[in-house]
Amino acid sequence: MTRFFVDISMSLDGFVAGPDITLEEPLGKGGEELHDWVVRLAGWREQHGLEGGETGPDDELVRAIAPRVGAVVMGRKMFSGGSGPWESDPNADAWWGDNPPFHVPVFVLTHHEREPVVKEGGTTFTFVTDGFESALERARAAAGDKDVQVSGGASVVQQALQARVLDELHIHVAPTLLGGGVSLFGDLGTDAPQLKLTDVVESPLVTHLSYEVAR
Amino acid sequence: MTRFFVDISMSLDGFVAGPDITLEEPLGKGGEELHDWVVRLAGWREQHGLEGGETGPDDELVRAIAPRVGAVVMGRKMFSGGSGPWESDPNADAWWGDNPPFHVPVFVLTHHEREPVVKEGGTTFTFVTDGFESALERARAAAGDKDVQVSGGASVVQQALQARVLDELHIHVAPTLLGGGVSLFGDLGTDAPQLKLTDVVESPLVTHLSYEVAR
Repeated sequence: MTRFFVDISMSLDGFVAGPDITLEEPLGKGGEELHDWVVRLAGWREQHGLEGGETGPDDELVRAIAPRVGAVVMGRKMFSGGSGPWESDPNADAWWGDNPPFHVPVFVLTHHEREPVVKEGGTTFTFVTDGFESALERARAAAGDKDVQVSGGASVVQQALQARVLDELHIHVAPTLLGGGVSLFGDLGTDAPQLKLTDVVESPLVTHLSYEVAR
Repeated sequence: MTRFFVDISMSLDGFVAGPDITLEEPLGKGGEELHDWVVRLAGWREQHGLEGGETGPDDELVRAIAPRVGAVVMGRKMFSGGSGPWESDPNADAWWGDNPPFHVPVFVLTHHEREPVVKEGGTTFTFVTDGFESALERARAAAGDKDVQVSGGASVVQQALQARVLDELHIHVAPTLLGGGVSLFGDLGTDAPQLKLTDVVESPLVTHLSYEVAR
């Protein structure tokens, strides 16, 4: 059965991007530090069409994700950083060029209709304007026997937690204090689901925490 | 040389107390869950004058703290939950009864002068009205060869991080989302210090993360 999961890097102070986000610095000030641990890994580099990189426990963990993902759900902010009509979005073609690292159908939540975009390497971007539940259902159908990754940003993760549609939460805690920015969990309020710790993997650059989420 | 450290339980969403704090519920709604892992331990129970409890890695970790603590610094909120003149603080004698679990000199940051309070078991409460740096200096002097625990609450921890006076940060991440409340790190801004991950201890009920803090 298809499972819905989040897999995201967070600073110790709970941010998934730093302050002062711009098109040039889409993760805000210091935000790149959150991914220091992953960009050096062979598995990540391979997924992004690059050679070389480190192997080891972090790499095994990263390599285990892609094979389970049958579809991705993400927010407009994560897709392009923009908002409003697509014609006026300077980054309407997103961050990832001709061959994005997803290699599966990606469902982008937006208020603005747009024809699907087919990229190389198996990535398709479908724009969903009729809400979060609809995006999840379409991703579930596209994923077949595989799982759905709820990719980000923070507001989409919070919506998924509050709607009780997540099964797993995988948080990579980077050893850094960003001091501000985009809070992963924000204030979920009384809709915050129960968690159960299922796995911890430690490495010098990051701590991988896995939780089962109660529906 | 005396080291300054923080040792505190935090929810995955970064809170050290839940929302709606009252005298009856000083950790707010759900906040007690943060300490589920510790109150069952033999070491914690012993420190609080209770018998029995569990042993194991969590207990060893907790037992290792007390011997290194020569003095404690805490905020007024942590001491009594109150503010303003002591005469009108309904909890002016604090939470811990005649034999508090500190057993060392405790320096309480407050804007309101008050004579020291001597409790049983080696705990003394000294009220410091001339600022954070002064409290740290007095704690350092009182600690002798031992270390100083900057106990809480969150605003005192944030002040200590911003002032670059901490050497170690020990965070016990409870597998819970409180959904709101008192954020441990808040928005530290550009004064957030660099961290280095030094130790991870996992157990089913909590993940212990230790960091070295750059001064």
